[in-house]
Amino acid sequence: MTILELKHDILADNKREAQVIRDALARSGTLMVNLMSSPGAGKTSTILGIAKRLRDKLSMAVIEGDIDSKVDSLKVKEVGVTAVQINTGGACHLDVPMMKPAIDLLDLDMCDLVIVENIGNLVCPADYDIGADLSVMILSVPEGDDKILKYPLMFSMCDALIVNKTDYLELPSNNFNIDRLKERMSTLNPHALIFETSAWLDSGYDKLCAYLEDAILAKKSRSTT
Amino acid sequence: MTILELKHDILADNKREAQVIRDALARSGTLMVNLMSSPGAGKTSTILGIAKRLRDKLSMAVIEGDIDSKVDSLKVKEVGVTAVQINTGGACHLDVPMMKPAIDLLDLDMCDLVIVENIGNLVCPADYDIGADLSVMILSVPEGDDKILKYPLMFSMCDALIVNKTDYLELPSNNFNIDRLKERMSTLNPHALIFETSAWLDSGYDKLCAYLEDAILAKKSRSTT
Repeated sequence: MTILELKHDILADNKREAQVIRDALARSGTLMVNLMSSPGAGKTSTILGIAKRLRDKLSMAVIEGDIDSKVDSLKVKEVGVTAVQINTGGACHLDVPMMKPAIDLLDLDMCDLVIVENIGNLVCPADYDIGADLSVMILSVPEGDDKILKYPLMFSMCDALIVNKTDYLELPSNNFNIDRLKERMSTLNPHALIFETSAWLDSGYDKLCAYLEDAILAKKSRSTT
Repeated sequence: MTILELKHDILADNKREAQVIRDALARSGTLMVNLMSSPGAGKTSTILGIAKRLRDKLSMAVIEGDIDSKVDSLKVKEVGVTAVQINTGGACHLDVPMMKPAIDLLDLDMCDLVIVENIGNLVCPADYDIGADLSVMILSVPEGDDKILKYPLMFSMCDALIVNKTDYLELPSNNFNIDRLKERMSTLNPHALIFETSAWLDSGYDKLCAYLEDAILAKKSRSTT
C-alpha cells in the first residue's frame, strides 16, 4: 500500500506545516475561513455577499485559488477588497506550500478576516489542512441533495454548510429537498451550522455574517489573552 | 520536483495499463465513453436520457463511479440497464486498477456501449486514461460559462461537451452565455462537438444518441476489419 502511505505522509506533512500559518493567524488575531464547494456553486458570489456587508465594518482580504485565470480575484478587487490570486496550474486543491506565499503578501495585523476560496472540487480540498480556523462548504440547489451521500468527507468535516441558490427551490424542475439534507446532515455532522443563501435574491447573508463576526470576536479574544 | 515526477510516473503507468482495457474493447467492438463533470451537473440524468432512447436498439451497460453510495447505479438498474458500481472510498477519479474488475464483471461481447460515470470532479478525472474511446464532459448552466477559463484541461481534452440544464437559460437569474462558451471552446478545443440537453425538458438527447450510434458503428467496423 505504498501510494496510500505516501498520501498519508503528504497529508501529515501538510498538517504539520499548516501550524505555521495557524500560529501567524493567532498572533494577529485574524480569522481565516476555508471556503470549499463544487465548481459554480457560488463561492465567489458568497464572498461578494459577505464583502458587501462586512467590508466597512472590519478589514478583510481574500485569497483566490484557481487552477487558471484571475477572473475571481478581479471580481473581488472590483468591490474594494484586497485579493491575492493563487493559480495552482493543475492541482485540484490548495495546500500549505501554495498558501504561505499568499499569506506573506497580506499584512495580517491589518486583517480581521481572510476568506480563502479553494479550488472548485467537492473531494480533494477536504483532505488538505491549510491552517484555517473554519471550514465552510457550499452546496448549491441545482447540484442535488444527494451529494452528501456521494461526497461524505467534506460534509462530515465542515464547520458550516451554506445551501446556496435557494431561489431555485421554487422552480417546477426542483427536486432538492432541504429538510432531507438537514436530516442527513444531523446524522453525519450534527455540529455543523447550516445557512441558506441566494446570491440572486441577495438573501441569507446577514445570518452568515453574524456567524463570522462572532467567530472573529472569539478569535481576537483568544489572541489577546 | 519529486512529487511532479511521481505524478508523471503514475499517469504514465496508468496510460500503459489502459491499453489492456482498450484491447479488450477492440476485440469485442464495444464503445466505451468516459463521462465526466462537476458533482450534480447531470451525469446520471444524461445516462438515463441515453438509456431511454438506446436500450432497445443496442446492448448497453453502465459503470458507476462514486466515492460512496450506490444511489446512481440503483437509478440505472431501475430502467433495465446493467450497472456495475465502483466505490473509490475517497479517491477523486477512476483509474485503470479500479476499472479492470468492473470491466471483468461485464460480458463485453454482449455490450455495444459502456458508459462510465466518473467521479463528479472537473479536475482530476481529466488526467487519468481509463481506456475509453470517447471523453465526454458535461457543463451545466448553473455552474456558469466561465468554468472553461478556470478548469481548462477537461475542456481541452474532451471529444464532446454537453451543455446540460439548458432550461435554466430562460431564468431571469441566468447569466450563462452559450455563445460566449462556444466561442471560447472554438479556440481551446475546436474539434470537440457541443450538444445541448435538458433533463427536465427531456430534450437534446436525439442528437447525442445519433453521435454515439455513429461512433459505435465506426468502432464495430474497425473491430471486424
